[in-house]
Amino acid sequence: MKICSTKKITDYTYLNLVSTQYKDRNETDKNWIYASRGNTDRPDAVVVVPYHTKEGKLVLIKEFRVPLAGVQYGFPAGLVDAGESIAKAGERELYEETGLSVSKVLRESPPIFSSSGMTDESISLLYVECNGVPCTDHNQGSEQIEVILVSKQDAMELIARTDLLFDVKTWIVLDRFAATGQVL
Amino acid sequence: MKICSTKKITDYTYLNLVSTQYKDRNETDKNWIYASRGNTDRPDAVVVVPYHTKEGKLVLIKEFRVPLAGVQYGFPAGLVDAGESIAKAGERELYEETGLSVSKVLRESPPIFSSSGMTDESISLLYVECNGVPCTDHNQGSEQIEVILVSKQDAMELIARTDLLFDVKTWIVLDRFAATGQVL
Repeated sequence: MKICSTKKITDYTYLNLVSTQYKDRNETDKNWIYASRGNTDRPDAVVVVPYHTKEGKLVLIKEFRVPLAGVQYGFPAGLVDAGESIAKAGERELYEETGLSVSKVLRESPPIFSSSGMTDESISLLYVECNGVPCTDHNQGSEQIEVILVSKQDAMELIARTDLLFDVKTWIVLDRFAATGQVL
Repeated sequence: MKICSTKKITDYTYLNLVSTQYKDRNETDKNWIYASRGNTDRPDAVVVVPYHTKEGKLVLIKEFRVPLAGVQYGFPAGLVDAGESIAKAGERELYEETGLSVSKVLRESPPIFSSSGMTDESISLLYVECNGVPCTDHNQGSEQIEVILVSKQDAMELIARTDLLFDVKTWIVLDRFAATGQVL
């Protein structure tokens, strides 16, 4: 496999399509179109896995997602600003979206890829312990968020539901939490 | 939040940008652009989590991914054909990409969302037991795949690496396997 050329074929602010010419393993010329946020630095975004130590519960958010035209269960997340550390971005997003404060960073994943057939988007998972009282006063206008604290028993019930919209990372972590009471 | 209108703003075969006009919670008119495969049925794709019972190992693939311009560690996966069941699609993709056969389906997740800020793409995770000898003779021309079988010890070593490219789902499942020896 060999990449020959790559060019942006749309010109929007936050997301674009990119077209790549490449040679496959038979040396045949091929084309692949994918979506990109256009960042050169990885990761594009941070996804926070927050464990509320005092409550002994995992923190999820229910948020209206425009691309799904519905409310999704997910983790607090957001783009990493230029020059910002992943831990700092995670702390900021957790506070903006839930009002909770990071007390300890447990783990930071390397940049990992959301869906590499259709996008170069990468995220880092930031596993943290947090404290405080959930509050959504700091949400932006485009955000409509409800914070929920999830016990192991709650997780077992949630993961059995087939009528809810789940983020993929959240579903997998929640399944582990339901089975083991642990996220790491 | 209220969706007012949605329209495709590019016209490619496999992936397009979609523009949605919506009102945010302050009734302000807003626009959101995201990538879509254009399917009305969910999920778009199946991602197989294959456990090789005879070897006692998790099956991963190393595959060149054009959008990443590099080799990614991931699970066998592919689009679900129209009218095809998720289990059938998973069985087909596992065989095409690894030569292995499904002996038992352990679990099928509901459609869950890859990265709902930038795409409506959804996948189902299909946890299976499998058997056979890895073989990549059935790979398509655009695929360049190496099959690897991963023990709990291998998983612990892989998950500590920061120089590899991982699919997000694979990283989270691998981390659980490294910690517990289980994927479910």
